[in-house]
Amino acid sequence: MTKVTIFGSGNMGTAIASVLTAGGASVEHIGSEGGTITGDIVVLAVPYPALEAIVASHGDQLAGKIVVDITNPLDFSTFDSLVVADGTSAAAGLAAALPSSHVLKAFNTNFAATLGTTKIGELETTVLIAGDDETAKQNLASLVTAGGVEAIDAGSLKRAHELEAVGFLQLTLAASEKISWTGGFGVVR
Amino acid sequence: MTKVTIFGSGNMGTAIASVLTAGGASVEHIGSEGGTITGDIVVLAVPYPALEAIVASHGDQLAGKIVVDITNPLDFSTFDSLVVADGTSAAAGLAAALPSSHVLKAFNTNFAATLGTTKIGELETTVLIAGDDETAKQNLASLVTAGGVEAIDAGSLKRAHELEAVGFLQLTLAASEKISWTGGFGVVR
Repeated sequence: MTKVTIFGSGNMGTAIASVLTAGGASVEHIGSEGGTITGDIVVLAVPYPALEAIVASHGDQLAGKIVVDITNPLDFSTFDSLVVADGTSAAAGLAAALPSSHVLKAFNTNFAATLGTTKIGELETTVLIAGDDETAKQNLASLVTAGGVEAIDAGSLKRAHELEAVGFLQLTLAASEKISWTGGFGVVR
Repeated sequence: MTKVTIFGSGNMGTAIASVLTAGGASVEHIGSEGGTITGDIVVLAVPYPALEAIVASHGDQLAGKIVVDITNPLDFSTFDSLVVADGTSAAAGLAAALPSSHVLKAFNTNFAATLGTTKIGELETTVLIAGDDETAKQNLASLVTAGGVEAIDAGSLKRAHELEAVGFLQLTLAASEKISWTGGFGVVR
């Protein structure tokens, strides 16, 4: 049984836990008090600004593990830009801070509701996964698909820039009520 | 009757013409030989590198008109980056070159087949439109929806950066056969 540790138990942490548990994983949550990481896959289901503290407090424990960044690093004061440098990504920054981990970008293009129901409209929900370690991507994709959600390998970790652009755009559309929080971008194969 | 001039009659130019004609517009095409622009809305359905020549040859005629940029400025030699500067967009560059035009970004997140059929899987095809002129966006959206395709105002022209990221990602997914050229990102409201 794959052990998964999820930092955070908000909407996204809970929704991701439901998918991965349905996929056969044993899931534990770690809150802001911290704790010992037992999972081989670690999902950082926290807001972007919280990543830095997790790296500082748990970076050593994350070595050798698959670390999943789900963040959308928006400037929430303006909803008009990201707080990471142009052309880069939160995931790239995390990978630089955790050189001994296998960092993946995933789940940032999914609203929590579409993970919970495994549907976006009439479509199956699809998790887009970017990363430089093929085995790590396959491990996460296998758990996700076993949990009833589609998964697509979106390419190298460099593609996290585009995934974060998709997540950003989707958040602006929902915040401006052009789409609902149960909708967004679905993937048609 | 709205007059539309479309530069280019490839897959995209033809598909866009079919939607706008169905929406009640009178459409004329201009090829690489150039010609007189009669449309109030001008769609540049050409590859990104062709924009510069159109600006040079027809920039004066484009003053006061709604100019629609549909390009995805990929580096097609690598399929791994865009050729525009980080944080900017082809559309922003076009707007800077055509300061007297109302530049919109649209259609770049739609594969031609999904415009031709007005469907992406079981979903209605959605055209995402970004631009700084509200009336221009509304005019194009009205034609598109009258032509049987959904339209969503994706925000200011600054959002062209995100639309181009979506288009780029979608092209990489199709080129690597993760999705088909009749699929891609659909929008669920």
